Amino acid sequence: MTANTDRIARLRATMAEEGVALVALAPGAHMRWLLGVDPHGDERPLLACVTAGHAGFLMPALEAESARQHTDLPFYTWADDEGPQGAFDRLLSDFSAEDAGSIVLDECMRADHAALVQDRLPAARRQFTATTVGALRMRKDREEYARLKRNAGTADTAMQAAWAAMKPGMREVDVAEIARNSFRDQGATPLFSIVGAGGNGAFPHHQTGETVLRAGDVVVMDIGGRLDGYSSDITRMAVIGQAPEGYDEIHAIVDAAVEAALSAARPGAKAHQIDDAARGVITDAGYGDFFVHRTGHGLGLEGHEPPYITATSQTVLDEGMVFSIEPGIYLPGRFGLRLEEIVILRVDGPEILSDLPRDCRVIDG
Amino acid sequence: MTANTDRIARLRATMAEEGVALVALAPGAHMRWLLGVDPHGDERPLLACVTAGHAGFLMPALEAESARQHTDLPFYTWADDEGPQGAFDRLLSDFSAEDAGSIVLDECMRADHAALVQDRLPAARRQFTATTVGALRMRKDREEYARLKRNAGTADTAMQAAWAAMKPGMREVDVAEIARNSFRDQGATPLFSIVGAGGNGAFPHHQTGETVLRAGDVVVMDIGGRLDGYSSDITRMAVIGQAPEGYDEIHAIVDAAVEAALSAARPGAKAHQIDDAARGVITDAGYGDFFVHRTGHGLGLEGHEPPYITATSQTVLDEGMVFSIEPGIYLPGRFGLRLEEIVILRVDGPEILSDLPRDCRVIDG
Repeated sequence: MTANTDRIARLRATMAEEGVALVALAPGAHMRWLLGVDPHGDERPLLACVTAGHAGFLMPALEAESARQHTDLPFYTWADDEGPQGAFDRLLSDFSAEDAGSIVLDECMRADHAALVQDRLPAARRQFTATTVGALRMRKDREEYARLKRNAGTADTAMQAAWAAMKPGMREVDVAEIARNSFRDQGATPLFSIVGAGGNGAFPHHQTGETVLRAGDVVVMDIGGRLDGYSSDITRMAVIGQAPEGYDEIHAIVDAAVEAALSAARPGAKAHQIDDAARGVITDAGYGDFFVHRTGHGLGLEGHEPPYITATSQTVLDEGMVFSIEPGIYLPGRFGLRLEEIVILRVDGPEILSDLPRDCRVIDG
Repeated sequence: MTANTDRIARLRATMAEEGVALVALAPGAHMRWLLGVDPHGDERPLLACVTAGHAGFLMPALEAESARQHTDLPFYTWADDEGPQGAFDRLLSDFSAEDAGSIVLDECMRADHAALVQDRLPAARRQFTATTVGALRMRKDREEYARLKRNAGTADTAMQAAWAAMKPGMREVDVAEIARNSFRDQGATPLFSIVGAGGNGAFPHHQTGETVLRAGDVVVMDIGGRLDGYSSDITRMAVIGQAPEGYDEIHAIVDAAVEAALSAARPGAKAHQIDDAARGVITDAGYGDFFVHRTGHGLGLEGHEPPYITATSQTVLDEGMVFSIEPGIYLPGRFGLRLEEIVILRVDGPEILSDLPRDCRVIDG
């Protein structure tokens, strides 16, 4: 990995627009995206710092040699016995950032590392990355799209593998393991495999457990993996044998909510308009109280990242943004039903990354 | 898991001593230790809050049903479309903490979640957990010791499995995979497997890679896994065939440094005295510049946690504390040599958890 100078230049343009003097990033997705470096992060402060004229790292001595293989930017190293303050002071001095009036912190940074920066620059206005790195990361380039598209294919395959093995008597964890193994077989790292049978599906973030699948169960599966650094995420529905009374009607409502959101997703639309569209369909059908979460989230280096598709988001959607559309209806004691597509926004609307239909898969019961 | 009322009471005692009105913890080790809850943590603020009279959670609605299975404490839930501020205000009001003058934040909390607390209580003195939750977690109880002891055995077994398979022609990653598989076979989750052959070993946090092991190579292995929530961590040395010139002398120096640290580790000693003892041996032997890191770190629910055994730490060691003693000498271009024991401090000194001798294992070359 090497620093992407184009991305640094684009970051500096946003910094100039926002009047930001210093951006400080922690090990994680922002640093990986901007600088192509993914160092080990632990309790030792390790920061990537960018100003208009400089870029470099506050670097624990212990990590310097490994990190040096991935970047040519200057390191301000500090050893365990001296602590990070002196090296951070030297960095700020060299970067002429000792009196930075406005800083951007990585929102995922540990609170004590953020305090190291803020305590040194107590007068600085602090914001997170929403209008700088975060804004840039929302728009995916061609290579990122190619990875996300391929990754969506692995999730489709994992979903189908789980369905092919699914039968009454299996536990939720058994089904989840089949999906995880499919991700592994495809060279991906499984990230999550939510399997919710029957009433368990009514908890959107159900902890997949020992519940045994039985004939008549509705099974919601929400799975994702990581490949080449990028995430996948898909939710589909299955029923074992005969679907319970009323299932088909609810499925049709949620599918119509997905379609409404897809229709509303256009460059220039605000994120809340996508949520409005999906929520409107479900509310009009009388199930508004049972759609208990936002309509979607961005996807890329992280499984959840901007843009968030919520009822209140004023984020203006643009070409190249990748996000989920995943309305659901959760009926306590009965079942939960969610359908999730990942889309990339094109000039004329969203392109769905998955090739898997949203129909309910019927499993022999 | 259920809330450990004894631990909450002990936390409140430290809060009273320190004049702390509110402790806010993020999903992770502190929350797990104090409340027996390990909820999914993501971009949605989820906080455990403790005051003298109250304890409860700021809880994303999406996580409430899962988390409810693990705790009876009150939830202040918030939905995606309203955001967390209103629920956090209600929590502070119910807890009479709206004017908290002194707060403790989990140092591992995301910076944006910490900002949610700090922006609401801008006048509050902020500290991290060093003198409250962190101080309590340093002293392990009998059950924690039992888990750490058992876990040390799994690491011993994984180290021996890697040695048994090690031979010239293997890559570092192959050796690491054998150690990881051994952890898995024992029901543990592998956390890290650093394998550094020859000159790679001179980087203490070497990224295990494609380097092929050759006759005459010194191989440093630093591995650990997690079982029942607790971590293991061990470093041992091997040589393939004939050790290089001077190896035995360096090994003896590092081993003597471990022994000196063990002798210095007594209840009442300050952490830096342990570091002083190990560093003194290495410095006296002329290799002080090549011992580039602290002597050790605590171990428990996290792989690195207090107490940190550094050159400057004034932490007073006490019975029940568990930490590593891991001095090393790193000779650029030649090899690195580190020996690591995990110990629990008893009234009369440290008990080593591993049963594996610190001798250099000779592999047929």
